[in-house]
Amino acid sequence: MDTIVNLPKTKRGQKTLNKILKAAEELFYEKGYHSTSIIDITNKSNIALGTFYIYFKDKFNLYKYLLLIYSHEIRKAVAEKITESDSRYDKEKIGLYAFLNYMRVNKHVYNILWESLYIDKNIFVDYYESFSLRYIEGLRKSQQTGEVSEVDLTVLSYVLMGISNFIGLKYVMFENAEDVDFEAVVDSVMDILENGMFNK
Amino acid sequence: MDTIVNLPKTKRGQKTLNKILKAAEELFYEKGYHSTSIIDITNKSNIALGTFYIYFKDKFNLYKYLLLIYSHEIRKAVAEKITESDSRYDKEKIGLYAFLNYMRVNKHVYNILWESLYIDKNIFVDYYESFSLRYIEGLRKSQQTGEVSEVDLTVLSYVLMGISNFIGLKYVMFENAEDVDFEAVVDSVMDILENGMFNK
Repeated sequence: MDTIVNLPKTKRGQKTLNKILKAAEELFYEKGYHSTSIIDITNKSNIALGTFYIYFKDKFNLYKYLLLIYSHEIRKAVAEKITESDSRYDKEKIGLYAFLNYMRVNKHVYNILWESLYIDKNIFVDYYESFSLRYIEGLRKSQQTGEVSEVDLTVLSYVLMGISNFIGLKYVMFENAEDVDFEAVVDSVMDILENGMFNK
Repeated sequence: MDTIVNLPKTKRGQKTLNKILKAAEELFYEKGYHSTSIIDITNKSNIALGTFYIYFKDKFNLYKYLLLIYSHEIRKAVAEKITESDSRYDKEKIGLYAFLNYMRVNKHVYNILWESLYIDKNIFVDYYESFSLRYIEGLRKSQQTGEVSEVDLTVLSYVLMGISNFIGLKYVMFENAEDVDFEAVVDSVMDILENGMFNK
């Protein structure tokens, strides 16, 4: 197979694949990628070793598939909440809130995603570069309508990704997320994005 | 010993310690923390195994000492360029520029620092939490003089750290730093921090 995953054609197969993904996710999070073997994954998901290879050529492809899922899920979580007609301001606000909520219930994503820096740096670079390119597309439209000012959109996309990722680190990973008023945090960030950090 | 490092009292000792640190840095960057043994480090730095233990109790303390050095160096690189009388605007601008320049010549720092997430998460959390607390102190002074607006300073500190870290990823790690016009990048970031991202 040439693709990273051989997708199942039956419900039963999908169930098995999901079991593999869930076990791998837990093991990668607890022990890290390098210390997790395919046998660990099949043992934990209660399937035969051979079954793993129906879906994946190796552990690396399983890992890449997990990251693909995260990237889709994050974009979906954001896209579900916004519509084309929302202003860029609303898109950023709703998007940040949706991102923080996604990370809150998927705390392992930071660990598993950033470990790519130690598994294959290209994956880490591609992840953020693709995210940035897609971001720029949307920002360009809002720049053309005049809502977004004439800033360098590559810089702006990384500014926005840096903000959401570090705000996520602080309020999802460092703090007990249950104690955080996410709406207030998002409001503070939007205030900075709207007015800058200085008094005029 | 109770401290993380037993500092040498002679120049010769300092030279040996530096050799250990340089070898560890290169190995941690190339092979990662877990795959690097103390023997790898003493072999690479051409010292006897026993000599390692004059300075460090174990590999973990050596690692913590490296992060301490990075944190001091980054703060020093920034502090050297700014003075108390600079405005907060200038402090942020000069500080971002100094940070990017430091990371440009110390590309391994991202990898070694972020690996703490997989070695001992508390180190990762402490690193950014201490950085944030120090940042907030400075921002509070600038808020008291009226230069910085009445935003939540914890949020603002993470916004600023997120920006500098992700701008660093993009223009130091992802791009060939030699081809990047760092002044233009810093100007774009400062424009966003001053005016926000929207047209008024």
